[in-house]
Amino acid sequence: MDRVSRIWQDLQRIRAEAPLVHNITNYVVMNSTANALLAVGASPVMAHALEEVEDIVGIARALVINIGTLSQTWIEAMVRAGRWARDKGVPVILDPVGAGATRLRTDTAHLLIREAPPAVVRGNASEIRALFYAERGTRGVDSSHGSEDALDAAHAISDRHRCVVCVSGATDVVVSDRSVTRVANGHPLMSRVTGLGCTATALIGAFVAVNPSPFAAAVHAMAVMGIAGEIAAERSQGPGSLQMHFLDALHLLKERDLRDRLKAEEA
Amino acid sequence: MDRVSRIWQDLQRIRAEAPLVHNITNYVVMNSTANALLAVGASPVMAHALEEVEDIVGIARALVINIGTLSQTWIEAMVRAGRWARDKGVPVILDPVGAGATRLRTDTAHLLIREAPPAVVRGNASEIRALFYAERGTRGVDSSHGSEDALDAAHAISDRHRCVVCVSGATDVVVSDRSVTRVANGHPLMSRVTGLGCTATALIGAFVAVNPSPFAAAVHAMAVMGIAGEIAAERSQGPGSLQMHFLDALHLLKERDLRDRLKAEEA
Amino acid sequence: MDRVSRIWQDLQRIRAEAPLVHNITNYVVMNSTANALLAVGASPVMAHALEEVEDIVGIARALVINIGTLSQTWIEAMVRAGRWARDKGVPVILDPVGAGATRLRTDTAHLLIREAPPAVVRGNASEIRALFYAERGTRGVDSSHGSEDALDAAHAISDRHRCVVCVSGATDVVVSDRSVTRVANGHPLMSRVTGLGCTATALIGAFVAVNPSPFAAAVHAMAVMGIAGEIAAERSQGPGSLQMHFLDALHLLKERDLRDRLKAEEA
Repeated sequence: MDRVSRIWQDLQRIRAEAPLVHNITNYVVMNSTANALLAVGASPVMAHALEEVEDIVGIARALVINIGTLSQTWIEAMVRAGRWARDKGVPVILDPVGAGATRLRTDTAHLLIREAPPAVVRGNASEIRALFYAERGTRGVDSSHGSEDALDAAHAISDRHRCVVCVSGATDVVVSDRSVTRVANGHPLMSRVTGLGCTATALIGAFVAVNPSPFAAAVHAMAVMGIAGEIAAERSQGPGSLQMHFLDALHLLKERDLRDRLKAEEA
Repeated sequence: MDRVSRIWQDLQRIRAEAPLVHNITNYVVMNSTANALLAVGASPVMAHALEEVEDIVGIARALVINIGTLSQTWIEAMVRAGRWARDKGVPVILDPVGAGATRLRTDTAHLLIREAPPAVVRGNASEIRALFYAERGTRGVDSSHGSEDALDAAHAISDRHRCVVCVSGATDVVVSDRSVTRVANGHPLMSRVTGLGCTATALIGAFVAVNPSPFAAAVHAMAVMGIAGEIAAERSQGPGSLQMHFLDALHLLKERDLRDRLKAEEA
Repeated sequence: MDRVSRIWQDLQRIRAEAPLVHNITNYVVMNSTANALLAVGASPVMAHALEEVEDIVGIARALVINIGTLSQTWIEAMVRAGRWARDKGVPVILDPVGAGATRLRTDTAHLLIREAPPAVVRGNASEIRALFYAERGTRGVDSSHGSEDALDAAHAISDRHRCVVCVSGATDVVVSDRSVTRVANGHPLMSRVTGLGCTATALIGAFVAVNPSPFAAAVHAMAVMGIAGEIAAERSQGPGSLQMHFLDALHLLKERDLRDRLKAEEA
C-alpha cells in the first residue's frame, strides 16, 4: 500500500469511527480547533477542570495539550490529565506554543514532557529549538527559523524522550529515531490565520487515535492539513475566506486530492 | 394566529427590542454564540465574575447557563447568577453540555436545576437521559441516542422541576406538562459545526426574553434555528461555509421562509 | 504628505515589520482579534499568566488591555502587565468594555487608567461617558449614545490623564489635547458582528507600534477599520459573510482604497 492509500485509510477510519479527541488547549483556538476536528470527522471535547480531566481522558482516544494561554490551574490540569493518559495508554500530543518566549512556557513544556511523555511533539522551528537549546528570544508564537534549522534539536528531543517530533513550516519535517519524512504541502497564506499550527496538532491527535504508529500519524496529519490548506488557498482572497474554505476542504477531502497533491518524501 | 405568525411576531420583537441576553457559557462557543444572538437581533453579554454577575443579571432579560467548560469558580458564578435570576424573575435557560460524560457535569447540572430552577433545559438525548437516569457513558458532547429515546426522561424532568425540556436532534422534541411539540427542521451538516447546540440554547434565551411562554419560546427558537440551518446548508459546501451562511440566514430570515419551511407538529 | 499617504505608510510598516502586539483581552474576541491583527500584518500574542505577562510585554511593541470578561486573576495580570509596560515605555491601549454596566468594570477601568496610564482609550459613547460621569445604566456592551454625546467626557478624560480618547460609533471621534478628528467610515452591519469594537482597539495597538503619535495611530487605525468594514459590507449578505470579507479586506487593503474612501476631518 502506498503512502496515499495509507493516509486515505486513516482518514476513512477517522470519518467512520469519529474518535473522541480530548483537548486542553488555549482560549484563542478552541473554537477553530473543535471545528477542524469535526470537519476531519473526529469528535472534539474540551475539558480542563481538575475534577473531570481524568474522566474525559478515560473515554478519549488521544489527548492534545497546547500551552498557548497558560495559567497555574490549567498547568495542573494538563499535568493531571497527562499522567492519567500515560497510565492508561492514551497517546498524548504536545504543542509547546511560544516555548522560548517566556520561561513559564519553556518550563511548562519540559514539565509536561517529563510527567506525561508525549507520543508526538509538534511546534515551529523556534519552539522546537527552544525546547532543546533552552533558547530565549522566540518572537511570541511565530517562528524566526526555518524548519531545517530545528532538525538537530528535533532529533535530540526525539532520541532523549523517545517521541516523534514534528517541526512545521513551509516544509514540515517529521522526525523519529533515525527516520525523517518531509511534507511540502501547504500555502503561505495559512500563516495569516491564527491557530492553524494548533489545528495541525489537533489533527495529529485524530490520526494518532486511528493509527498505532505516531510517526505515520504525524506525517499523515501534516499531509492532510497541508493539502486542505492548498485547496482552500486556491479558492480564497485572503485569510478570512481561507479559514472557511479550509474547513470545507477538510470535510470534502478525497483520495484523488491526496494523490494529485501529496508532496512527501523520506530522507 | 397560526404558528408561523407567532414565530414571526417573536422574531420581530427580538429585532425591535434587542433584548439583553446574559450568557455564562463555555470558552469554545462564546464567539459563535454571541454572533448568533446578534444575527437574530438580540444583544449578548458574556460575564462570569462573581463580583458582577448579579449586576448583569439585573439588566438582562434572560440568563443562559452552559456547562461546556467548567471549573470551580465558574460553577460558583453560575450558581450565584442563577439564584439572583430566580429571585428577580429573570428566566434561566440551562444547557447541560456533556452531562453523563463526567460526574462533575452531571452533578453541576443537578445543582443548577436545584438552585436556579430553569425555565427551559435544552440538551441532546444523551444529556437529557443522563440527567434523569444518572446514566454514564455519554460520548463527550455528542449524542449516541435519538431524541425520541429521551422522551420519557424529558417528561420526568419537566414534571419534577416544572420546566420545559427541549431534546434536540434530527427532530427536536419540546416537552412541557402534557404538551409535546416536534420540530423537524435542520440539516445533518449542522452537526459538523461546533457549538450549534449551544447556539440553539442561546437563541431560546432570546425568544424567552420576548415571549412569556417558555414552551412557545423553545419551539420558536428551535424552528428558527433549524430553518436558518437548512437555508445555510443549501448554500454550503461544508461546515466552514455553513457557519457563515447560518449567521447570514438568521439575520435575513423572512416570514416567507418560515411559512415555506416550518415542519412543526404537536403530539 | 497627506493623510492618506501617512495611513498608507503606517500600514506598510505594519506589514513589513509585523510588530508583536500583546493582548490581554476577553474570551469572546480572542480568536477574531488575533485574526484581525494577522490580517493587517501584525503579530498577535495572547498571554495572561502572572508569571509571564512581564516577559511578553518585554518583547512586545504595544499592550492592548480589554476588560470584556473580567475575573480577579485577570485583573491582577492586567495591572501587572500594564505597570511593566509603563516602566518599559511600551504603549498601552485600553478598551473599557461595558464600563458603566457594572461597578466591577467601571472600577477596573479606573484602576487601569491609574496604574497603567494608557496612550489611547477606545470605547463607545456609553463607556466613555461612564468613565467620566461614573454613569450607570450602560446596556451591557452596546452603546445607547451617539459618539458626539461623549465628546465632553472624552475631552475631560484626555486632559486629566494625558491620553488620546477614541469614541467609536457611526462616526468615530478621536480626541487629544485640543485636537479632534472625526472618521466617518464604516457600515451599520458591522455592529451585528461581535467584537469589532475590540478589533478596532487591537488595530490601534498595531498602529501605535509603528507610529510615535498615539493620536495619529488611533485615527489611522479607525480609518483602516472603517474602510475595510465598508468594503466587506458591500460584498456581504449578512454578519457571517461580513466577518469573512472584513479579514480579507484588511489583508488586501490598497492605498487606492484609502484614497477613494477616506472620510476623515479635523474639527
